[in-house]
Amino acid sequence: MSPDFIHTYVSVDCVVFGFDHENRLNILLVERNLDSERQIKLPGSLIFSNEDVDDAAERVLHELTGIKKMVLKQFKCFADPMRASSQEDINWMGTEYKHHIDRIITVAYLSLCKIDHKINSTKYATVDWCPVDKLPSLPFDHNKIINESLIEIRKWIESDFSIIFELLPKRFTIRQLHKLYSALSEKYIDIKNFHKKISSFSYIIPLEEIEKNVSHRAARYYKFDAKIYKKNNTKLIK
Amino acid sequence: MSPDFIHTYVSVDCVVFGFDHENRLNILLVERNLDSERQIKLPGSLIFSNEDVDDAAERVLHELTGIKKMVLKQFKCFADPMRASSQEDINWMGTEYKHHIDRIITVAYLSLCKIDHKINSTKYATVDWCPVDKLPSLPFDHNKIINESLIEIRKWIESDFSIIFELLPKRFTIRQLHKLYSALSEKYIDIKNFHKKISSFSYIIPLEEIEKNVSHRAARYYKFDAKIYKKNNTKLIK
Repeated sequence: MSPDFIHTYVSVDCVVFGFDHENRLNILLVERNLDSERQIKLPGSLIFSNEDVDDAAERVLHELTGIKKMVLKQFKCFADPMRASSQEDINWMGTEYKHHIDRIITVAYLSLCKIDHKINSTKYATVDWCPVDKLPSLPFDHNKIINESLIEIRKWIESDFSIIFELLPKRFTIRQLHKLYSALSEKYIDIKNFHKKISSFSYIIPLEEIEKNVSHRAARYYKFDAKIYKKNNTKLIK
Repeated sequence: MSPDFIHTYVSVDCVVFGFDHENRLNILLVERNLDSERQIKLPGSLIFSNEDVDDAAERVLHELTGIKKMVLKQFKCFADPMRASSQEDINWMGTEYKHHIDRIITVAYLSLCKIDHKINSTKYATVDWCPVDKLPSLPFDHNKIINESLIEIRKWIESDFSIIFELLPKRFTIRQLHKLYSALSEKYIDIKNFHKKISSFSYIIPLEEIEKNVSHRAARYYKFDAKIYKKNNTKLIK
């Protein structure tokens, strides 16, 4: 065997997005302990020798949240030879996995979660939402993975708009959808035009209920109808 | 170290699409030699220990075609524990890489090539186009990778229509574009409606030239204008 070919560990890392009540995108992070110092990171795991990567990602999500079924999308393999070369990261892997690891390839996944969903981790003592614009410096290339996941979530919603409703409560106002959409597209979108566009979508159904106890004018609630959406969205050119 | 964690080789495999003069999607395949038997497969390679996967894919494409710059998109990591477990595949890896390998993870890439482009492989003696509907049974999970790449190329064109022009000659007729689009979307699309739709796209520019020496009515040639396309395609909801 030429010593030139890689022979390595492979992990999965999951970027789970949520949308908070202050209209910010958040990511679920966990704590790792290193020399009594606490540091946060993306949830992830080495894959087992008899495991497929997609199964490993499902396992990580389940250990992380306790939720049985979550949307999950593999988006990129990160394999920079230097991505796990800091002494701190090598030490942590030695402690966590009981082996000296100095190169590791990871396959990154995107997932979406309603932020009010109860998180029942079976693995991590601490699981916390962190707003995307308040992220500290994370270990490995986790900041890079998150940056690329933001591009990816936009593409995902562009190709399948139904995905956006995974981040909203079951009943939502157009204002909430507008705020989420604006946070995702990172640009100013006129609310009136947005309202008009959204009203033309047959799969966004107005409900009888309206908001209660709000300081602004009470808005109507809507719900998303997945069946109507599926029927209407099969075209290649839109 | 728990013996349960994977420690493995990682490869890249490239699915390069072309569109032939009989309006069929094709894929570039190479030959592998095994016990004097010839078998075709997807072009690919183990990655080097100091190499990122994206760089490995670029290397494979260049060794395959001799073309300096091709569009390239990573689309999925295939890691089924059984994907390289047939004795034939293990034997071939032993010959090719001089080592016993019985598990290997691969990262699959999509690329597109004008079918008339000259192929100058620096690595493979035989590189051939094969129509997608004439594919034989391929080694490893290469048939599965190709099946998933077909889903992926549709998504890619859905999210970025400009990609379709990588498969067409620089000047093309609407009939050619229609045939390619139909091959990709796998359904009947009315040519009149298609023509009307395409004519409304400012980035598809009619040329003065028309077809010569054809048995049907000579059609006008068009070209794609990438600059106009980029200017007009920045919306999240289409």
